[in-house]
Amino acid sequence: MPRRATIADVAREAGVSRTTVSHALNDKGYVDALTRERVKAVARELGYRPNVRAQRLRTGEARTIALISSMPFEVAGGASRLGFLMEVAAVAASAALVRGLALVLVPPMSTARLPLEQLDIDGAIVIEPTQDDVNVALLQSRGLPIVCIGRAPGDDAVPYIDLHTPATTQLLLAHLLAQGARHIALMIGAQQRNSYIDAHATYLTFCSAHGIDPAVVHVDEAGGEQAAYDACLRLLAQHPELDAICVPVDAFAIGAVRAIGERGLRIPQDMKIVTRYDGVRARSCRPPLTAVDLHLDDVSSLAVDLLFAHLGGKAEQLAVEPPVPQLVVRESSVLNAKTE
Amino acid sequence: MPRRATIADVAREAGVSRTTVSHALNDKGYVDALTRERVKAVARELGYRPNVRAQRLRTGEARTIALISSMPFEVAGGASRLGFLMEVAAVAASAALVRGLALVLVPPMSTARLPLEQLDIDGAIVIEPTQDDVNVALLQSRGLPIVCIGRAPGDDAVPYIDLHTPATTQLLLAHLLAQGARHIALMIGAQQRNSYIDAHATYLTFCSAHGIDPAVVHVDEAGGEQAAYDACLRLLAQHPELDAICVPVDAFAIGAVRAIGERGLRIPQDMKIVTRYDGVRARSCRPPLTAVDLHLDDVSSLAVDLLFAHLGGKAEQLAVEPPVPQLVVRESSVLNAKTE
Repeated sequence: MPRRATIADVAREAGVSRTTVSHALNDKGYVDALTRERVKAVARELGYRPNVRAQRLRTGEARTIALISSMPFEVAGGASRLGFLMEVAAVAASAALVRGLALVLVPPMSTARLPLEQLDIDGAIVIEPTQDDVNVALLQSRGLPIVCIGRAPGDDAVPYIDLHTPATTQLLLAHLLAQGARHIALMIGAQQRNSYIDAHATYLTFCSAHGIDPAVVHVDEAGGEQAAYDACLRLLAQHPELDAICVPVDAFAIGAVRAIGERGLRIPQDMKIVTRYDGVRARSCRPPLTAVDLHLDDVSSLAVDLLFAHLGGKAEQLAVEPPVPQLVVRESSVLNAKTE
Repeated sequence: MPRRATIADVAREAGVSRTTVSHALNDKGYVDALTRERVKAVARELGYRPNVRAQRLRTGEARTIALISSMPFEVAGGASRLGFLMEVAAVAASAALVRGLALVLVPPMSTARLPLEQLDIDGAIVIEPTQDDVNVALLQSRGLPIVCIGRAPGDDAVPYIDLHTPATTQLLLAHLLAQGARHIALMIGAQQRNSYIDAHATYLTFCSAHGIDPAVVHVDEAGGEQAAYDACLRLLAQHPELDAICVPVDAFAIGAVRAIGERGLRIPQDMKIVTRYDGVRARSCRPPLTAVDLHLDDVSSLAVDLLFAHLGGKAEQLAVEPPVPQLVVRESSVLNAKTE
């Protein structure tokens, strides 16, 4: 890059001191109008721009936070890239800017590891961390404040926004039961993520309360949609009695829908299917998937607020609860459901 | 914020020089293993983190770019927030990280102006700037390199990724004609944006070539979906002969679909409607909207590449052409269209 004009260059060219340049450019008022205009003209001509970074360093202000998805590329990238992360990002970026924070986006990448070391950040929001999450560990080793969306399993010290997974799972299962399903399976990811752990526990309790034989399938996230398709085919072969599947990960639900169609089963008449996040994939699926409104607007703003409090050292709250999730009924579980 | 531990604190506590601390933490190898581990342990204990910002300042490396939407909140925020910008963001953020750049997301905000002054950035990608775009002007006044997605009208000096608007418009209009439409209207935004200017010109040429009486409606972006609804009702009242409308802005198309339904017209039998960006809104609309695949993956990566070249002072190319857009046919223009 060509050398950038410095304040010294402007001072020399305008024939004034550096302090005068600084005052003139910042409209401090200690400089007469004529000089101020001349300094500004010279600065423009030389292409001088104040070094915001250096100013921030001097004042010690926190300026940048990262939004990081811990979901693997295979389920949160590609066709699913306009998903949970980006919906959070859209709201969080605005909420951050209002607070004077820039939000750096770190989407899942098909490379092995996120290049977090190179990021010059003051804190981070991590979406759905796993147990012993490498991204969380790296950020912690740098001493950065972190807020998780979804509790970090096995680490009670990381502040988080509660995703209400037990309530969400209960909503979906009770809905399937109310629609007449009696043999309901659960398909979750293989990693140790809090949403899976909570969904699993809620499912087992629900099955036991309603006399349902549990059938749980763990799918490798790295296999994405295709792995869910394969797993669903095996599940249907092993459990011909099944009449419903709860598939919280939307990319997995899409794979499962394909497998159900492959087996010649009609949705929802022969097989009902529901997912968690009411996003693009749920809506553009044929048939559209019954899902849950997680109030991601609120989740996102609350995450920024909580991180902001921690950045400022005012870290009382550990967990924040957004509004309770609401069911969004679609044709994957109710025939002729009225959808938007 | 509490005072952050400095390299001097670590040096004092570990009983070594600052240089030794720096070498130990950066695994430079000039320090014996035992000392290196002790220094690392002390650094962890004190919560010391290297000041990446200061390091970057010393080396003068470019580190951060902003992605800015010049579309107003009313058409690119709210229900449309998971749109064009975020699809570009998902790909651009990864492409940027691979190049060692952090991407800061600047979504449209409901406040009057984007708070760009506070951003500590080295360059920016601006989506669909208007003529005399305030964001572009502000970035230019700071001497920052800019790349636009969609040409900046009236400013031939700003490098851009061509959105192929004439080709896109031609595709959509030719499709409507092929589907039997003979009275085709065009609904575009009121601002001076290159995509509108090009769509308008292409439309007029197309009408003249096919003996169609032109009917163009300009809708105020600030009115969003509702303004398009109102404008469409007026259009239908004035032009009862219409059998198709081309509505490039997806939020406007959603409003128009509502107005068409309000008038008791069936889509696509009585009225065909098409939009430009094949995003969430087009897909989740009932019926789903015929749209265009703009190859936003390519557009986004090319924008990052072009900005990267400009950041490095290797600024030969002014305009870059992504692959030509492709039609995605849906039920808003073809009865029983096979959709995904």
